[in-house]
Amino acid sequence: RLKPDPVPETLITQVLDAAIRAPSAGNAQNWAFVVVRDPTLRHGLGAIYRKASDIAAAMYSARGRPPHLTEAQFRRMLSTGEYLWNHMGEAPVILLPCQRQPVVPSAESLPPEMRAHHADELAYAARIRGASIYPAVQNIILACRALGLGTTITTNHLRCEDEVRALLGVPADVDTFAMMPIGWPMDGFGPLSRKPLAEVVHADRWTQSWPG
Amino acid sequence: RLKPDPVPETLITQVLDAAIRAPSAGNAQNWAFVVVRDPTLRHGLGAIYRKASDIAAAMYSARGRPPHLTEAQFRRMLSTGEYLWNHMGEAPVILLPCQRQPVVPSAESLPPEMRAHHADELAYAARIRGASIYPAVQNIILACRALGLGTTITTNHLRCEDEVRALLGVPADVDTFAMMPIGWPMDGFGPLSRKPLAEVVHADRWTQSWPG
Repeated sequence: RLKPDPVPETLITQVLDAAIRAPSAGNAQNWAFVVVRDPTLRHGLGAIYRKASDIAAAMYSARGRPPHLTEAQFRRMLSTGEYLWNHMGEAPVILLPCQRQPVVPSAESLPPEMRAHHADELAYAARIRGASIYPAVQNIILACRALGLGTTITTNHLRCEDEVRALLGVPADVDTFAMMPIGWPMDGFGPLSRKPLAEVVHADRWTQSWPG
Repeated sequence: RLKPDPVPETLITQVLDAAIRAPSAGNAQNWAFVVVRDPTLRHGLGAIYRKASDIAAAMYSARGRPPHLTEAQFRRMLSTGEYLWNHMGEAPVILLPCQRQPVVPSAESLPPEMRAHHADELAYAARIRGASIYPAVQNIILACRALGLGTTITTNHLRCEDEVRALLGVPADVDTFAMMPIGWPMDGFGPLSRKPLAEVVHADRWTQSWPG
């Protein structure tokens, strides 16, 4: 939940400056960031996000409560989600981290003995794309937090991505990876609920827990 | 380039503790982290990584120098890459961030008016997976940097992922997302080369540059 108050441009520049310190495969930096402050465009994004979220709501409901969340935590997650579905367009800044689609060399340009791997390479290129943009997204989250700004990763809009491209003039060979509302938080930063390390960390083999 | 000296377990625990502070879609935390210190397993991972890197080398070579890197920067990137291809198994710690494959509700479990979206939902679930693990990976990188430890994201091993699963006993429904060597750096932390913000940030519309 964000206040509608504007965010100084210099702070957004600081956040972007943190974003581009992130790594990317082969240091290719095929990223782009669209910072939307224009009210008409923000409300347009909000409407697209709202529409995409109806599908998300049906999915969350069909999936039910994950076992590691209490009923209260699950309800709180759904209600903060729903608040965002209805208020995305009111965030003073909406940031969209984007990435140009990968260019995989043609099979013909590869040495003959490598051509059999070409189809696998297309799948590999698709699979690793997040590795070259979500680290920058996490830097955005941390930079916002350090400046007292609230934000979050949302991805529902990907269900209607072409509408987002059309609204902002994003080229067809550039994909969006998140829609991040940024602004001054109405409430404090809440405590995090996380599974303990012992449940998620393995030592050497899957069968062994991390002792630390 | 990492020294072979061991890294205290308490530091790795600190790094992992930073990792799990990252966000994940629906706070699902479907992540797992395998910390490999056993020398036999590390050398096994190194051999798999070496093999997968032959394919990577052919791809880099077919793709050529990206225009934003100078010839010297490109050569340095290739030579540090090649060093890593040959020395992965010698890193004192190899960390593999993993994530359980997503469970998409069946078409039948959805409300009738949503069933037409089911195929799109499968594609959506695949597309957003990186959003729930690479933020944790970036937290690992930043935590290492803060502790003076060197690390990097590598993904070449995905070309031979089943061999990694078999070696470490990772279940078939869990995917690996990176192979991160961790250790004390031989050299200092180098300066970063990055495209300037003006080249990669757009204000409101794709056609407008960020003024900041």
